[in-house]
Amino acid sequence: MSAAADTSTAPDPSAPRDTYTPTDRTVPTRSRQRASYDKELVHSILDEAYVCHLGFVRDGAPVVLPTLFGRVGERLYVHGSTGSRPLRAAGDGVSAPGLPVCLTVTHVDGLVLARSAFHHSLNYRSVVVHGTAHQVTDPEELRTALDALVDHVVPGRSADSRPGNAKELAATAVIRLDLDEVSAKVRTGGPNDDAEDLDLPYWAGVIPVQGGHGTPVPSGDLDPSVALPGYLAAL
Amino acid sequence: MSAAADTSTAPDPSAPRDTYTPTDRTVPTRSRQRASYDKELVHSILDEAYVCHLGFVRDGAPVVLPTLFGRVGERLYVHGSTGSRPLRAAGDGVSAPGLPVCLTVTHVDGLVLARSAFHHSLNYRSVVVHGTAHQVTDPEELRTALDALVDHVVPGRSADSRPGNAKELAATAVIRLDLDEVSAKVRTGGPNDDAEDLDLPYWAGVIPVQGGHGTPVPSGDLDPSVALPGYLAAL
Repeated sequence: MSAAADTSTAPDPSAPRDTYTPTDRTVPTRSRQRASYDKELVHSILDEAYVCHLGFVRDGAPVVLPTLFGRVGERLYVHGSTGSRPLRAAGDGVSAPGLPVCLTVTHVDGLVLARSAFHHSLNYRSVVVHGTAHQVTDPEELRTALDALVDHVVPGRSADSRPGNAKELAATAVIRLDLDEVSAKVRTGGPNDDAEDLDLPYWAGVIPVQGGHGTPVPSGDLDPSVALPGYLAAL
Repeated sequence: MSAAADTSTAPDPSAPRDTYTPTDRTVPTRSRQRASYDKELVHSILDEAYVCHLGFVRDGAPVVLPTLFGRVGERLYVHGSTGSRPLRAAGDGVSAPGLPVCLTVTHVDGLVLARSAFHHSLNYRSVVVHGTAHQVTDPEELRTALDALVDHVVPGRSADSRPGNAKELAATAVIRLDLDEVSAKVRTGGPNDDAEDLDLPYWAGVIPVQGGHGTPVPSGDLDPSVALPGYLAAL
């Protein structure tokens, strides 16, 4: 409601480009004051998420699937098998036109309880990316993308695991989506009850929603001499 | 990988219907052993989620938006303003044919770290619902749906808040999506490393991902005589 309001103004074209340019698709029809095009905010929301929800059109109908992704600068990489339907459809951008997609990431930060049922809400941070995805065919970019996918799950992990071999790389398809038509939406703060409801005898406020990690569970077949690395203990 | 495997068999048509019937769209192209059509499992995954990701097609392109939802038996209700684009497009099912949608819910339960980059994964539970959404126009059903939306955030809350008045009901649009073409997908367990990688000196196992609630934060304008109700303290 408030925290993102000061970043929702149109970018100054003469300033260094640290915002995305709003388009018809990225300006919300309501709660516009919650929208932001700030690149740093968008990156932080994306990087904190374990999965995105990838939408595409198949036989005229929408499909939304949860999937792993990674980010390298202004490029997102989404992972799949070479046999998966969306990845086949994406093509390589040369022989095929690419796949129109919408990639969305959402964090729920709090339950907003108002006196009125009408004003119940959630505190959240979300990013919506529109664009056309293309299959990554360059071997160098494919390796970079796969490292980014692993490091997105645990930063630093790609350097502490066995890299993909030729057979695995051949069985893996990755599509690329550029961060260009992008918006964030953020709600923070308490409930916005109507003035005449403030004296009603209902509890009102926010229940924070928290995420975190539990104690690491070693694989049953892990050699006991392999200690938990510091980057995992620090999660 | 394993927990859902025993529920992924096709339903017996002579048995009481406690599973959804698989369709072309709900049988995954890969990891079929993770798919389930068990109604109880689907309901539990839906009910635990604060938001769904709703996909629809606009001007030929996919759109995926996070949104509140509620469930009443085999019906889902998705909330929005009467001005929102997908809700206008859904129509009332009489004057308009309804809106093809895909509604997806995902919980991330663990980070699965394998010795090989290739076998890194997530433990997760997801539900994907395909169907056609219609706007709710019956006043009785609209009230039921709005209660379900509030009770989805906190069970029991609709009875402990001011119900919507005529003006609020007129400003609220709700679309209904029947649970019919539905599947769940579940991955549990540790990494599936190749046998020849088991001796590599990399830590392998699962980092549990946990969700929870923080201490409730009363609204700044809350009368101090209004105590935190038991159903919130128990979250």
